[in-house]
Amino acid sequence: MKRYVKKDFPVSEVRRFLEPGPIVLVSSQWKGESNIMTMGWHLIMEFEPSLIGCYIWNANHSFSMVRQSKECVINIPTVELATQVVRIGNCSGRDVSKFEAFKLSPIKGEKVDAPLIKECYANLECKLIDSSLIKKYSLFILEVVKAHVAISPKFPKTIHYRGDGLFMISGPTTSKYRKLFKPENL
Amino acid sequence: MKRYVKKDFPVSEVRRFLEPGPIVLVSSQWKGESNIMTMGWHLIMEFEPSLIGCYIWNANHSFSMVRQSKECVINIPTVELATQVVRIGNCSGRDVSKFEAFKLSPIKGEKVDAPLIKECYANLECKLIDSSLIKKYSLFILEVVKAHVAISPKFPKTIHYRGDGLFMISGPTTSKYRKLFKPENL
Repeated sequence: MKRYVKKDFPVSEVRRFLEPGPIVLVSSQWKGESNIMTMGWHLIMEFEPSLIGCYIWNANHSFSMVRQSKECVINIPTVELATQVVRIGNCSGRDVSKFEAFKLSPIKGEKVDAPLIKECYANLECKLIDSSLIKKYSLFILEVVKAHVAISPKFPKTIHYRGDGLFMISGPTTSKYRKLFKPENL
Repeated sequence: MKRYVKKDFPVSEVRRFLEPGPIVLVSSQWKGESNIMTMGWHLIMEFEPSLIGCYIWNANHSFSMVRQSKECVINIPTVELATQVVRIGNCSGRDVSKFEAFKLSPIKGEKVDAPLIKECYANLECKLIDSSLIKKYSLFILEVVKAHVAISPKFPKTIHYRGDGLFMISGPTTSKYRKLFKPENL
């Protein structure tokens, strides 16, 4: 298993890793129990505060854990973890203790009680700052309050879900178009 | 310029193209004027009805056009269009007539008046079905009412924004993990 060395990362810049659309692992904790879910439906909503919108289906065991604890960690796995990512998404925290079953290491958060997943490329500690869209849209508005990101590689090989059991693996990153940007848009 | 031949596509399955997180072009029309904007902040919110949430900043010229016309088209460009995509994102519809300036072809929609962009891999005709989150979060809840998708290739080479002028180009698609899914999760 790859071991990432991480550093603190500015929360206002986490779009670098989420905007390309990777599958993420959401870890949570509530009343002494921890859980992990696989999630693909998320978007960036603001730089500062650093806001993320996430869809968590109310049939997921994590739904009530995140809603009640009002926090979670968004962990970004790379392709080496793809098997675990899929297995995690195909069982329920009602039946399986996921950290143990999938040999993942929980790390204590700095600003949340939810555990970080050590084996992931990045860990974003999040607070649920608005619950008002959960009932109608299953939409959780999260603020990233602390970010830990691997020192290298600069561009992680993330996995992106296409539905029907298919994943796109992230390809090369290019700066070829950078000269076309207005400085204020960079 | 690549020319895609398209077919009707089930609206409930558009996640296949949006969930991996590509940059999209949003085309709109209001009072005889059309516009195009580049957008990276979106998420799937439901299969049926086929819902998409999109963040459109209120400083964008498209903001009021989509809000007032209550419709738009989400167009998915491939890497061949990357230069236009960046240029479109670095000028305003207040100053530039984008279809003409960037030599893109408007096609009449079937269910919306907003124009489809012919040169894109996919065109998703959308209705704005909920405006209530626009004021607080710039979040537009759209329903895809008609989808046109290229017959080939099956997996388009899309571009994914990392911020700071950098793009990730989509890599290979794999079915390697498909056997790990429960049938009901496929």
